[in-house]
Amino acid sequence: MLDLAIVESLEETSKKVNSYIDNCEYFNSFALPEITDGLKAYFTRGGKRIRPALALWACGAVGGDIDKVIPAASGLEACHTWTLIHDDIIDNDDTRRGDDSMHIIGEKFAKSNFYTSSFENKSFGETYSILIGDMLHGISVSMILDSVKVGVSPEIAIEICKLLESNIALSLIEGELLDVKFEYMKLEDINTDLILSMIIGKTAVLIKYAATIGAMIGLNTTDINDKRILALGNFALNIGIAFQLQDDILGLIADEKELGKPVGSDILEGKKTLTAFYALEKFTEEEKTKFLTIFGNSNASPEDVKIAVKMIIDAKALDRTRDMAEDLVKVALKKLSIIEDSKYKELLISFANYMIERKY
Amino acid sequence: MLDLAIVESLEETSKKVNSYIDNCEYFNSFALPEITDGLKAYFTRGGKRIRPALALWACGAVGGDIDKVIPAASGLEACHTWTLIHDDIIDNDDTRRGDDSMHIIGEKFAKSNFYTSSFENKSFGETYSILIGDMLHGISVSMILDSVKVGVSPEIAIEICKLLESNIALSLIEGELLDVKFEYMKLEDINTDLILSMIIGKTAVLIKYAATIGAMIGLNTTDINDKRILALGNFALNIGIAFQLQDDILGLIADEKELGKPVGSDILEGKKTLTAFYALEKFTEEEKTKFLTIFGNSNASPEDVKIAVKMIIDAKALDRTRDMAEDLVKVALKKLSIIEDSKYKELLISFANYMIERKY
Repeated sequence: MLDLAIVESLEETSKKVNSYIDNCEYFNSFALPEITDGLKAYFTRGGKRIRPALALWACGAVGGDIDKVIPAASGLEACHTWTLIHDDIIDNDDTRRGDDSMHIIGEKFAKSNFYTSSFENKSFGETYSILIGDMLHGISVSMILDSVKVGVSPEIAIEICKLLESNIALSLIEGELLDVKFEYMKLEDINTDLILSMIIGKTAVLIKYAATIGAMIGLNTTDINDKRILALGNFALNIGIAFQLQDDILGLIADEKELGKPVGSDILEGKKTLTAFYALEKFTEEEKTKFLTIFGNSNASPEDVKIAVKMIIDAKALDRTRDMAEDLVKVALKKLSIIEDSKYKELLISFANYMIERKY
Repeated sequence: MLDLAIVESLEETSKKVNSYIDNCEYFNSFALPEITDGLKAYFTRGGKRIRPALALWACGAVGGDIDKVIPAASGLEACHTWTLIHDDIIDNDDTRRGDDSMHIIGEKFAKSNFYTSSFENKSFGETYSILIGDMLHGISVSMILDSVKVGVSPEIAIEICKLLESNIALSLIEGELLDVKFEYMKLEDINTDLILSMIIGKTAVLIKYAATIGAMIGLNTTDINDKRILALGNFALNIGIAFQLQDDILGLIADEKELGKPVGSDILEGKKTLTAFYALEKFTEEEKTKFLTIFGNSNASPEDVKIAVKMIIDAKALDRTRDMAEDLVKVALKKLSIIEDSKYKELLISFANYMIERKY
């Protein structure tokens, strides 16, 4: 699905970022070896490094030297990673990228090193993952500030670090808190505006940030109101939202083997997606009642799930989400009109289309 | 116990730092009002602001303008605060400075806003305090970098931020992890060297950092090997350790009313203090067995606790700890010999003596 140029560019970015992270001195200064193991664990499991790639492409698209973005792009990936570590505790997710999540790593460490109860091992696992996340947060900040070592001005390094720590990360965490609150709130108190705020905070702002800092470093300016920086940032914001919408669509109708998780699990979990709420808006009271016997009911049968998906499709909610994702990509591509043609601009355009064309 | 000059200077520092934090824009950008409430909660409860004060005094002691330290000192206090928030989850401490700790604030928020079970409210409380701590971490970084707004050079702002995020905070968190591990480890695997490492990491390095950044800003240099910066940093490191040792001593023999918590609670909790382990080193096998029926036994009677304290005193472990604390303060004061006389140097000297003279 991804065209060859993107695949190659993503691989190239991954190599550079992985190598920077591998060689980063900050991971190796601990008396307790389980700290270094934890800090490196998520990075060694692949991941497409989409955010770092966007930062590099945005820099290239404004004519900058992409190698100057490597420390900041690595710090951005480290930021994404520490938020995943803490989210995994909060969401009680026991796996991440096909292996143990951080609190499970900690729990297993306790099990094999101490002689305590399973309750205590679990508690140690949570402690461990809170602290590993906190450490990686600190390392992420330092990586970004290390941009000065590759020729980024101290003023720009400070601006991109502050933009992350006092703005982007706060939105991201607020998005996570809102997502958690959805599980506690009454269904009638949740609406599509709130869900969109959650998606923007939890997913899209960090993607916007990636393109923004790439452009700032590329243009060698702290002026975030520069029109090319705004254009690339808003391009990324829009495709970030589209990315999440496509995720929701695939969660309902993808090929299960390609997706790598059971199709319809969002229905069983009662995940507050825009698509589900578009459907709820359209349902009659009777349909709503029927839908809610399945939505969020972990005991619902596969046949029930199929019925719920069909109800969503019949209510045109899937079409509405798909239209919205397509519109977002169109808006995103328009933003690029002020950017000169280059191979990097081509990569950004292909990537934007991939957001809604991908099948997994 | 604190002399008048210190009391006045601490009050003055508190006012400046509290005012800086109160007016900080980063606390007010949230759609969810419970975030602002949480971020500000611990700051509104007093606290002596010892760390910011040390930063200001160190700056003054090298002839610098102490007002240039306010943003960094506020960021340092915010760093101390976010680590307390996460420690309170980890240590299951339900109060902080006489009021609810952050996870209890979150739990109560859930209780009054959602209609969920007490288990779910508790879980929301943990989520809330993980995320509030993470946000305050980001804000702390931004406050430090905002030093440039009061005339600190970007190079120095970057150095003091990196020093915190890739060094000091990592030691601090490693100290916390080690402290948690003590609860899981066999007693015979713990020794006084390990306990000292824990104290240095968990308490002393952040106090060292306070003096170090004050001196760096005061001297307008990024050279952390400058002899005055090293002197002030090591002064603070030594009094930081002494501070913790005095805490342990007071935990055994203070006046209960002055201390504000039950004397001997460290014995009931089996807290791994240097003093307890000095005693264990001296005990005969018989004494050790007797001591361990009380140490860490939450059901032990007040009489038992008195017996354990007497055993520690008889083993000269309290004297040994007190001697060590006094030696540390002497070493600390010697470090100041290369610093010119000033009212700030006087404050530092008085403060060092206070570390071991304080009764609560």
